[in-house]
Amino acid sequence: MQKVRVGIIGLGNMGAAHAAYLAAGQVEGATLAAVCDAIPSKQAWALESLGDQVAFYEQEGELFSSGLVDAVLICTPHYHHPASAIHALQHGLHVLIEKPAGVYTKQVREMNEAAKASGKVFSIMYNQRTNPLYQKLRELVQSGELGEIRRTNWIITNWYRSQSYYDSGGWRATWAGEGGGVLINQDPHQLDLWQWTIGMMPVRMRAFCRFGRYRDIEVEDDVTAYVEYENGASGVFVTTTGEAPGTNRFEITGDRGKIVIEDDRMTFWRLRTPEPEFNKDFKGVFGQPECWKCDIPIHGQGGAHRGITQDWIHAIQKGTPLLAPGEEGIHGLMLSNAMLLSTWTDNWVSLPIDEELFYSELQQRIEQSRYQADSSNSSDATVADMSKTFGS
Amino acid sequence: MQKVRVGIIGLGNMGAAHAAYLAAGQVEGATLAAVCDAIPSKQAWALESLGDQVAFYEQEGELFSSGLVDAVLICTPHYHHPASAIHALQHGLHVLIEKPAGVYTKQVREMNEAAKASGKVFSIMYNQRTNPLYQKLRELVQSGELGEIRRTNWIITNWYRSQSYYDSGGWRATWAGEGGGVLINQDPHQLDLWQWTIGMMPVRMRAFCRFGRYRDIEVEDDVTAYVEYENGASGVFVTTTGEAPGTNRFEITGDRGKIVIEDDRMTFWRLRTPEPEFNKDFKGVFGQPECWKCDIPIHGQGGAHRGITQDWIHAIQKGTPLLAPGEEGIHGLMLSNAMLLSTWTDNWVSLPIDEELFYSELQQRIEQSRYQADSSNSSDATVADMSKTFGS
Repeated sequence: MQKVRVGIIGLGNMGAAHAAYLAAGQVEGATLAAVCDAIPSKQAWALESLGDQVAFYEQEGELFSSGLVDAVLICTPHYHHPASAIHALQHGLHVLIEKPAGVYTKQVREMNEAAKASGKVFSIMYNQRTNPLYQKLRELVQSGELGEIRRTNWIITNWYRSQSYYDSGGWRATWAGEGGGVLINQDPHQLDLWQWTIGMMPVRMRAFCRFGRYRDIEVEDDVTAYVEYENGASGVFVTTTGEAPGTNRFEITGDRGKIVIEDDRMTFWRLRTPEPEFNKDFKGVFGQPECWKCDIPIHGQGGAHRGITQDWIHAIQKGTPLLAPGEEGIHGLMLSNAMLLSTWTDNWVSLPIDEELFYSELQQRIEQSRYQADSSNSSDATVADMSKTFGS
Repeated sequence: MQKVRVGIIGLGNMGAAHAAYLAAGQVEGATLAAVCDAIPSKQAWALESLGDQVAFYEQEGELFSSGLVDAVLICTPHYHHPASAIHALQHGLHVLIEKPAGVYTKQVREMNEAAKASGKVFSIMYNQRTNPLYQKLRELVQSGELGEIRRTNWIITNWYRSQSYYDSGGWRATWAGEGGGVLINQDPHQLDLWQWTIGMMPVRMRAFCRFGRYRDIEVEDDVTAYVEYENGASGVFVTTTGEAPGTNRFEITGDRGKIVIEDDRMTFWRLRTPEPEFNKDFKGVFGQPECWKCDIPIHGQGGAHRGITQDWIHAIQKGTPLLAPGEEGIHGLMLSNAMLLSTWTDNWVSLPIDEELFYSELQQRIEQSRYQADSSNSSDATVADMSKTFGS
């Protein structure tokens, strides 16, 4: 079978890392054919690190139309993902985008429509979907072990960031540069997993974002959101970059018990009798269903970016279903946008959100942003040192 | 030293339990002198269980004016606490009330004013203040070990109640009979400890109560509340009677680390350098303060009702400060009232709340309540089987 020739757009540390494992032949059925970065000096790095068989371009359009690639991996700054993806799809290329899908759902919806029309294989780097903890949770929910979902509660506050982190790039934590804070930068995986594992999106939300609570930044660094689902379930999502050491604890209650994921372990408090049955039959005053505390075995590591790239290549070659279809990137982003919109309007937000309203609210903030993107600035973002976030 | 002669108003199972240990001489410096219950048949129980040295009354006024007691313990239904307490104080008696302080803060404020004017020793049965876990937390906060508080998060959902529990008494879970649901019946201790341990009340709140979500009842059985404190900290409180097995996890973050109380254990993730100092000095991109996970030793059991009664007697005899001053009962009740009011008005609530507004909103619900209190009904409440909640 012919190898899929892959191009990479953006050689920040994420792009560079993808390039490295692809160039090393660690993705079956794929070969790295070309890379692109707006910074000319990256050419020397590419030559040294990837070898002279990998073409270098400064303009993504040149790479797209080069005829050298069948598929591209888009690792540009957040705002550029949809435009680059649409551009690549128009050139008949398969696309894998880095997360988040974009900054506002309106833009991402256009990308999804382009992907659908193209018939190409479109995926998103939701590498945490390969994490066996979350795969197991999804499987337990889908198989009915947990019963009907009643409550979700995710405390994800272990994203400590110092002021010096924010000061390390002018685009960081600005409306114009990144389009948000902890929600768009640190939480995309959790926002995706929150809905992917249980198979439900909320129908309404009331959220409380705080902007620059802990740092001298203009975007949100602390968020609490309350949500309600169509089946009557409720949920809470708490996140911040301002706490140390923080917490990562995801609790999901169903009518057959409770699951907690914390410290890379999953515990299932399993009711021997589903709660509604117990309640129907029980005639005493105090009493509750028998409950077994079960340690759920989790095999393997998962969570690697390479897993998603491999999955995408297999889908291109063999037509296998994607673990992380690109179209699903809109769900996590919708949650993130809804949290901001609820705060900005100081009110409930129904989901799907009013995309035009979000867009116009965001535009106002971009106009007043302390960072004003221009051609020299925007290239900064591609050279951000993301090495320490690689693997997240 | 003369023994304090104690009377008990209401011989439901809480009153009966207090009577038992007092009659057994288990409270130093106190003697049980009289009891009161509206149900005449309780007299036979009192004679058999407490002996013929304990007088029995059907009317609290007769007990108050009997000259047989110096102090009374009020164990009537929630709504009656303030009126009975004021009545007793007017007779020059020291007063210890069962929790909650009352059903609405307006009523409780009147009680507090009467207590202040009386100069008598006034306490509330917040027996969980004797629990060494929460005492230790309060001590760690007060001594500055945790630093400035940044976030509180209490998930207290292990209050499972079946429909048969609610059906076991017509007054249960009604606006007219009990004045609320999980907040007024199950959560008074946690609502008190939430503010007592950290020494802060929120300044505003947005809460989401759901009424009869899990059971055929008219009051709240599921609540999520988001709060903000004057110092900028935020918090979440989640509670329900509808989940099994539920969770009891209290997490408090400060700028010197994080404390979690769960499964009767306390863990302190202690930062070696306070976070603000680390942030000020750190010049790298990724990094965070060194953190030590510390198991905090907890000695003793605590949590017994007798401990509060003993504390009250000591205060009467020796003038020692109260662990649970009666006036502080208003704080937990304020939180509970605020959660309902925020839901009813579907809006933010500032604390202290608008007591008149809460009172009128509550009155509307009492008028439409499925339970209509009358003299025969109201005596039901005093005979409720509370034996299984004793100790909580």
